[in-house]
Amino acid sequence: MKIVIVGIGLIGGSMAKAIRKNTEHSVYAIDTNHETITAAISQEVIDGEASLDELDRFDMVILGLYPETTIRFCLDNIRRFKKGGIVIDTCGIKSAIVEQVERPLKDAGVRFVGCHPMAGREFSGFAYSLDNLFEKASFIMTPTDDTVMSAVGEVSQFAYDIGFAKCVMASPEEHDRVIAFTSQLAHIVSSAYVKSPSLMDQAGFSAGSFRDLTRVAKLNEDMWTSLFMLNRRPLIDEISHIIEHLEEYRTALQEQDSEALHSLLRDGRLLKEKSNEAMAN
Amino acid sequence: MKIVIVGIGLIGGSMAKAIRKNTEHSVYAIDTNHETITAAISQEVIDGEASLDELDRFDMVILGLYPETTIRFCLDNIRRFKKGGIVIDTCGIKSAIVEQVERPLKDAGVRFVGCHPMAGREFSGFAYSLDNLFEKASFIMTPTDDTVMSAVGEVSQFAYDIGFAKCVMASPEEHDRVIAFTSQLAHIVSSAYVKSPSLMDQAGFSAGSFRDLTRVAKLNEDMWTSLFMLNRRPLIDEISHIIEHLEEYRTALQEQDSEALHSLLRDGRLLKEKSNEAMAN
Repeated sequence: MKIVIVGIGLIGGSMAKAIRKNTEHSVYAIDTNHETITAAISQEVIDGEASLDELDRFDMVILGLYPETTIRFCLDNIRRFKKGGIVIDTCGIKSAIVEQVERPLKDAGVRFVGCHPMAGREFSGFAYSLDNLFEKASFIMTPTDDTVMSAVGEVSQFAYDIGFAKCVMASPEEHDRVIAFTSQLAHIVSSAYVKSPSLMDQAGFSAGSFRDLTRVAKLNEDMWTSLFMLNRRPLIDEISHIIEHLEEYRTALQEQDSEALHSLLRDGRLLKEKSNEAMAN
Repeated sequence: MKIVIVGIGLIGGSMAKAIRKNTEHSVYAIDTNHETITAAISQEVIDGEASLDELDRFDMVILGLYPETTIRFCLDNIRRFKKGGIVIDTCGIKSAIVEQVERPLKDAGVRFVGCHPMAGREFSGFAYSLDNLFEKASFIMTPTDDTVMSAVGEVSQFAYDIGFAKCVMASPEEHDRVIAFTSQLAHIVSSAYVKSPSLMDQAGFSAGSFRDLTRVAKLNEDMWTSLFMLNRRPLIDEISHIIEHLEEYRTALQEQDSEALHSLLRDGRLLKEKSNEAMAN
């Protein structure tokens, strides 16, 4: 299969490296940063640079772009993709992408599948990409009534081939609702956590829990602003949930109600254990 | 040196194992759970069981007990400790302990130092104790005007000997204020995080950020209720700070203010980077 990756940052670059490591597919790239292309060629991660005019030569186009750029790239190049070929995106939100690009691509004879590789790092760019970033990770696909099912099978096989541990299917809306909780809220909470006036006093006073709670505060604000704004409602709901719960703990402390605090903590532990069990199954 | 550890759970047990691994000190234990004592002896972690009547034979007494039990043990056995010997506790809060036990122990001729080994696991009990739990960890000491400084030197040497990466000094009040942020708030936020109605939908939709944000929700609610209640004021302040900040992100989303959201995220990233730099120095 001949593959082109558009945008070889952290995700696109890791895709290229995982394809190189695990398959015999040829892999080309398009990127506005020419230095990145040069680095990827010299590291033998890609076979070469592709141009927009050559898009119809590729069986699969993987978009490693931010949400707005993903949509614009699809619509701007809609006549350039190979008829019957596959186009997938890798954005962390799905409804806003799928709603705008899937039907036009279908009408142009292109098989689109909305995808979200569930992996990342607190660094951006090709320099941080890894050939094993997707090991143990889920590959989420969000087919709709407009999706050509053959493409879902092919993309799913491709995801397993390049090292994903499992493929998961969900509607774009379900994806966005759950991701608001599992990923987006984590980044908001981490970002809010480091804003305490005690932040700079903590050298020598912190252990694993501080490190874990604040790791993802080191985020790419351009990308995350876009992801958050395109998933506002589910994310607002999740922020409201955690604020309400935090207020319960605060009230128990203010009222010196040990029993209530104990019960809040026990409930949290039981939920965490139940969730761990569900994930192990 | 002859050491006795009172309470060989996760921390006391790890202390015993670290002493055994790194030093020639003899180490005995007192624990209300006889099976734990038997296990520790059969695993050759301790040299034997000690009784309360033998406390005066030990140069150092390490208390691996919950806060209330720590205070009670000190006051109940105040005449039994060796004159000139050292007693240290290992509780996660310091003011409430130090205020109640240091002066009475001093009056009885016993050198007390309030201590907090900054390490833990999301499991409790001797079975989870590790001989390397304290590697890379800070050992915090909270001397006051009543502390005999020779004891601080000896305890500090002891901490380095058993594998701690560094010793840090703070007043009990400063310790409690900072720990409310670095450790206690992390446990509260993690516990609140898992209470979203989306919790059980997340299999296949989560990656490192969810795992990190919720790891410490699996806590020992008996111990943490006690630690939180004894450090209510600083902890209430920290919960209020994070709620206020979370509300800022929510407002930006509600008002569709991308610029404000971007700026909140950028501020968080910069603070996290600044904090990483400070910790590296």
